[in-house]
Amino acid sequence: MALIVQKYGGTSVGSIEKIEGVAKKVIACQQQGNQVVVVVSAMSGETNRLIELANQINEVPPAREYDVLVSTGEQVTIALLSMAILNQGSKARSYTGGQVHIRTDNSHTKARILDIDEAKVRKDLDEGNIIVIAGFQGMDEDGNITTLGRGGSDTTAVAMAAALKADECQIYTDVDGVYTTDPRVVPTARRLDKVTFEEMLEMASLGSKVLQIRAVEFAGKYGVPLRVLHSVEEGPGTLITYENEGDSMEDAVISGIAFNKDEAELTISGVPDHPGIAYQILGPIGKANVEVDMIIQNVGADGCTDFTFTVHRNEYQKALEILKKTAKDLGAREVSGDDTIVKVSLVGVGMRSHAGIASTMFEVLAKENINIRMISTSEIKISVVVDEKYMELAVRTLHNAFGLEEKPAA
Amino acid sequence: MALIVQKYGGTSVGSIEKIEGVAKKVIACQQQGNQVVVVVSAMSGETNRLIELANQINEVPPAREYDVLVSTGEQVTIALLSMAILNQGSKARSYTGGQVHIRTDNSHTKARILDIDEAKVRKDLDEGNIIVIAGFQGMDEDGNITTLGRGGSDTTAVAMAAALKADECQIYTDVDGVYTTDPRVVPTARRLDKVTFEEMLEMASLGSKVLQIRAVEFAGKYGVPLRVLHSVEEGPGTLITYENEGDSMEDAVISGIAFNKDEAELTISGVPDHPGIAYQILGPIGKANVEVDMIIQNVGADGCTDFTFTVHRNEYQKALEILKKTAKDLGAREVSGDDTIVKVSLVGVGMRSHAGIASTMFEVLAKENINIRMISTSEIKISVVVDEKYMELAVRTLHNAFGLEEKPAA
Repeated sequence: MALIVQKYGGTSVGSIEKIEGVAKKVIACQQQGNQVVVVVSAMSGETNRLIELANQINEVPPAREYDVLVSTGEQVTIALLSMAILNQGSKARSYTGGQVHIRTDNSHTKARILDIDEAKVRKDLDEGNIIVIAGFQGMDEDGNITTLGRGGSDTTAVAMAAALKADECQIYTDVDGVYTTDPRVVPTARRLDKVTFEEMLEMASLGSKVLQIRAVEFAGKYGVPLRVLHSVEEGPGTLITYENEGDSMEDAVISGIAFNKDEAELTISGVPDHPGIAYQILGPIGKANVEVDMIIQNVGADGCTDFTFTVHRNEYQKALEILKKTAKDLGAREVSGDDTIVKVSLVGVGMRSHAGIASTMFEVLAKENINIRMISTSEIKISVVVDEKYMELAVRTLHNAFGLEEKPAA
Repeated sequence: MALIVQKYGGTSVGSIEKIEGVAKKVIACQQQGNQVVVVVSAMSGETNRLIELANQINEVPPAREYDVLVSTGEQVTIALLSMAILNQGSKARSYTGGQVHIRTDNSHTKARILDIDEAKVRKDLDEGNIIVIAGFQGMDEDGNITTLGRGGSDTTAVAMAAALKADECQIYTDVDGVYTTDPRVVPTARRLDKVTFEEMLEMASLGSKVLQIRAVEFAGKYGVPLRVLHSVEEGPGTLITYENEGDSMEDAVISGIAFNKDEAELTISGVPDHPGIAYQILGPIGKANVEVDMIIQNVGADGCTDFTFTVHRNEYQKALEILKKTAKDLGAREVSGDDTIVKVSLVGVGMRSHAGIASTMFEVLAKENINIRMISTSEIKISVVVDEKYMELAVRTLHNAFGLEEKPAA
């Protein structure tokens, strides 16, 4: 008998009819001989309705009370889903985050899960119940209601699966799996049967918004097999685990091509090249709460160096102001920047040890006359920054060059 | 420094504007040097909205999940009221029933409070917070969410006041106090400054629907001074305590005249007068869950007796059927009944020991040619059943005869 944790988002439980549909799916899973825990979000629109009420009082509602308010959204869903399951003849029990002891820190509106006491859930499961748990919420040490922030229901599901040592955590969404790249850009993009946690992290952080990064990190840390499935259509989805579609870790398999249109690049040139210079440049940026993505420093001539980094496009102006001030302090030659760039990344386990992949990538882009502005590599990805007008061309060309439309031979 | 518990019902918190008004009142109470605990209901309409959602799944929703669902209504209000208080510059903390350990039995949808752990609330009060508590809800021993049934917010307020040994429990409603009788029937009806718990119980059970009977019983049991006030208009309201407006318990003070239009009377005549006959007649009625109000048995001739009782008008037909069957079994002569009757009661502490009151009552009614069908007395009331067409006349005549429009001399 397997233990399955399923998670359904707000759109999947957006009406009584949809909730009854979810009840049916959940019961089917139980009838296949599984123990089932379901994590649900608030019905779509409900969280926004509650936030609007709060905003009539205060544009920035106090965090503790905000959590008390919005956590009711999921509580409504767990009650209704349990009623629907009971009505269809199976046993069900609903629980809020606090009731199943999802203990968090006290960072209201963005709390992090510390631990879960799964004893009560296990007992209920053993008595034949389907357990319905409110996603997105927990309780701090003092019994205050906390919420995990947007998308926190994915994290709740993974955390419950980890605590219960579940066989699989199934995330039901509006897509039927993880693709080699965005099918809207490359029509031949293919659904992956399997992808590793690390690859999924790169895919997610680079713009494939199928899963919350936090949930993937959590799943990877605790080794919870994660499956992305369509909430209505039948299908196997994509399994996120320690293995990808390749036969072994030694194969250099490209899983997909991610891209990110929200980047902007900044360069400070002609700064004195001495120890601590990176901190002097990036320190003020970090203090202003601007997140830095890629960082590249070139070896310079004449004891000087050029330093380039990328930030979110929304923070480009802010970062530029700060950098100009820093340049003055450091006596740098020049500050320049560009917010019409994109990052395109090849993602795949084991590619680092296969030098051929990087050179193929550069060759293919060169043939299309796409100028590469920055390059950055990690164990499982190679990213390039190019002018945004080349984005679709770069993604399509790479997808084709690495044969991603075809499944690798097992 | 006094400790005040205030309770606001659904209409009083029915919009953001009204919630902001309540925040203002609550803060004013604190600024007068009091510690303040506020108990609130769901915003008006919210509970019904939730029940309608449940009814789309099941006409009779499972009780445990029903409680999980409807308890969100009050949780929304506590968050919004706390935000409003914080926004107006005072400190506030909201708590659900479970969070302040309002422990109940496990009778979902109609749970009874077992005890309250007030330590957390007291600590918060001492730190200068206004405490905002969700009415109507609690938690059973196993941590399940329970609700106290309709009107349960009054009970929550009284229970909190009892646990905290509050100086006063203020119930804010849409009337400005308890009246000598219904002002719609008697325009000269007067607001009482004070009334005893016992009198209030009689007034409430006899049709003055200002307060929940349960809350008054609770307050009387724990000696919590209860005050009924208007939620918008300023005024002293009516204090419900151990004393009434009279100078001492020895005074025969009529506090008011209550009436109940929802009664019906049933008579079984010519039943053998032997021990156990009352049980034989009322047993089957009780088993059918029909509540009996007044019961009168006349001494009969020929070893036979007549037996009369009243029930709620909605249950008249049901009771009549049962009684006809009983009559057959007992060999009674006749069953008769009337559902066009009303009960009118004089209520006042100490009236039993003042024989003059009953005779005055009967004399006044006789002068108006009002036929008395039944009489029943208790320590603090004299009730008569009369034809419903005489109701207004009887109430007005009695109100006038006992001079209730004027405040008794202190």
